Amino acid sequence: MTNHLPGVGVTAAKGFRAAGVTAGIKASGSPDLALVVNDGPSLAAAGVFTSNRVKAAPVLWSEQVLKDGHLSAVVLNSGGANACTGPLGFQDTHATAEKVAETLGLNAADVAVASTGLIGVRLPMELLLPGVELAAAELAEDGGEAAAVAIKTTDTVHKTAVAAHPDGWTVGGMAKGAGMLAPGLATMLVVLTTDAAVDAADLDAALRAATRTTFDRVDSDGCMSTNDTVLLLASAASGVTPGQDAFAEAVRTVCADLALQLVGDAEGASKDVRIDVVNAATEADAVEVARSIARNNLLKCAIHGEDPNWGRVLAAIGTTAAAFDPDALDVAINGVWVCRGGSVGEDRDLVSMKDRQVVVTADLNAGSDRATVWTNDLTADYVHENSAYSS
Amino acid sequence: MTNHLPGVGVTAAKGFRAAGVTAGIKASGSPDLALVVNDGPSLAAAGVFTSNRVKAAPVLWSEQVLKDGHLSAVVLNSGGANACTGPLGFQDTHATAEKVAETLGLNAADVAVASTGLIGVRLPMELLLPGVELAAAELAEDGGEAAAVAIKTTDTVHKTAVAAHPDGWTVGGMAKGAGMLAPGLATMLVVLTTDAAVDAADLDAALRAATRTTFDRVDSDGCMSTNDTVLLLASAASGVTPGQDAFAEAVRTVCADLALQLVGDAEGASKDVRIDVVNAATEADAVEVARSIARNNLLKCAIHGEDPNWGRVLAAIGTTAAAFDPDALDVAINGVWVCRGGSVGEDRDLVSMKDRQVVVTADLNAGSDRATVWTNDLTADYVHENSAYSS
Repeated sequence: MTNHLPGVGVTAAKGFRAAGVTAGIKASGSPDLALVVNDGPSLAAAGVFTSNRVKAAPVLWSEQVLKDGHLSAVVLNSGGANACTGPLGFQDTHATAEKVAETLGLNAADVAVASTGLIGVRLPMELLLPGVELAAAELAEDGGEAAAVAIKTTDTVHKTAVAAHPDGWTVGGMAKGAGMLAPGLATMLVVLTTDAAVDAADLDAALRAATRTTFDRVDSDGCMSTNDTVLLLASAASGVTPGQDAFAEAVRTVCADLALQLVGDAEGASKDVRIDVVNAATEADAVEVARSIARNNLLKCAIHGEDPNWGRVLAAIGTTAAAFDPDALDVAINGVWVCRGGSVGEDRDLVSMKDRQVVVTADLNAGSDRATVWTNDLTADYVHENSAYSS
Repeated sequence: MTNHLPGVGVTAAKGFRAAGVTAGIKASGSPDLALVVNDGPSLAAAGVFTSNRVKAAPVLWSEQVLKDGHLSAVVLNSGGANACTGPLGFQDTHATAEKVAETLGLNAADVAVASTGLIGVRLPMELLLPGVELAAAELAEDGGEAAAVAIKTTDTVHKTAVAAHPDGWTVGGMAKGAGMLAPGLATMLVVLTTDAAVDAADLDAALRAATRTTFDRVDSDGCMSTNDTVLLLASAASGVTPGQDAFAEAVRTVCADLALQLVGDAEGASKDVRIDVVNAATEADAVEVARSIARNNLLKCAIHGEDPNWGRVLAAIGTTAAAFDPDALDVAINGVWVCRGGSVGEDRDLVSMKDRQVVVTADLNAGSDRATVWTNDLTADYVHENSAYSS
């Protein structure tokens, strides 16, 4: 085994090179094009995509090319979502994949494309295509950080995570996403890589299990994107075939790490809010209740104001179809049970909400299942970021 | 027939007296207790209530007393919702109805109670009960305005409406509600009165038909209250029995008028937004799509910023289960079709969004049904109003 000095993010695992460059798509001149290449020996891959029925061209393309369970490369751009751009937008995505294939000597049907930015605007192909050549020239085994930087939009920081297994294989990844986070994937672009030897079916199983309880449970503002994409590429360069449980756990760890980084960088947020719903009749009930709480604008405003307004939690629970008795609901905010039996509990003045992290616990007293959903508070800064300019 | 000088709101119709007084429930010293009395000859009544499963004590009480289709009086307080207050809170509601009955010589089982304000706090009964006596002493045939003032919470103006029919009967009403507006009734207290001779079953039919397309289609912030109450009382004092269609239309007119007043006074809003969904396969599809658009925080921010960001409209439509082809969606903002066939349409620079009213039209091209939902933009002022203090 060569002495591999792990990079960060998508180049933490062996067998991958990456780059991030400025193609000029963003008016700001910030990096806006990333390339991730799998040098093998395996090209196994899996992906999950937005459940929004209005899907961006790169999502339609990447779903298609992933059907055979193989990917050689992923090209990602910020500065434009290429969503709602019609057949010409799809041609742009196709041309991007062809350009990557031609430049690197690959098959375009093995190149996934991901885009993020404003919906409804064509990409500047005259800038993007030369950018692909630029990125190809910059590909490096330590290019993970540059790639993570190039996919930022309103993100204030770039986001990478790594889980290295003692048996000699690694899962790493990068993510972008700072607003429009919602279920059926928190809106985001994520590329995960591993040098473990895992076939496409097992990659798919591990990825779906991981996203179900991580990215799918981030609900920053209830808005679902047209471009959500999470890809997992396996090079097998470590030569190690891990047990499926250990591998799935590593993928989940990296996804959870990235998901919390998304929550921590959500647009305009001043609080990261964990909604724990416990003692639900079913996990689906717990998720429904947690999402309803996470999406209640009045509660999100109250949390911003550090006001333990548990009545708004009960009002949100009451809109769901979950099994519960309104007179048996308990609610804690930061560990203080301010609502007991659907009515006034401990003194709300005991609740401190000064810290960035706020935990809302809803006990449905209806079973033994549970779920956690992450959200943020609603702030004037969120309104400003999303009203002051098109994004 | 006596020469009746119509008052406003609930005393526009003959046979009703009303009052609004300061009981001291609100720390501000503003009026906080209203009383509406039906002097007959008929006591027919109907009501619709929140579909939230966490129901305030006065909602549980009023649903119960309305079962026989008769009401003699309604007592309403602002300054406290009496929601999530347990059995003692229900006793407080019961005691309030008993006090009204005792003071006016009525049966408590014919007295509806409605409350609005902070959830999870007991009402100050030592102030509220003397307030009932005060209000009873102030009851007057021109008390409709004072009653409308006394039920305000964060409302900046009081809200009344009247429809007078040439045949000699009238429907009038008052409403409060400025936030927490959402379907299954926009959160609000509404009392409607009429001097038409209409029995309880016909009142119920007219009221349900009217609220279904008015208050139920106001969705200011997606948050559903625990206290929504809309009551309709008929005195028959005009001696006229109207045709059911004419009566239903008058009730709908008053409800629509009050509903638009609620939208126009929504907390912190700078825009009133009408979402028209047309050419849907079913009315239910149209409503689902309109609500999804109305609840999209990113779009609501864009509207605040006067940005015709139609991509956010498509992203919202894409989250629904309604029948449509993503490539056949057309979207207009203030009459400019900025999205055609799911892609770029007319120049977005043609859209002017300077006025308070904004109209978003989504053409699903999937049928011939339609629906309209009203909402507001999302503003820093909304965040401030709902984070700076408990409400």
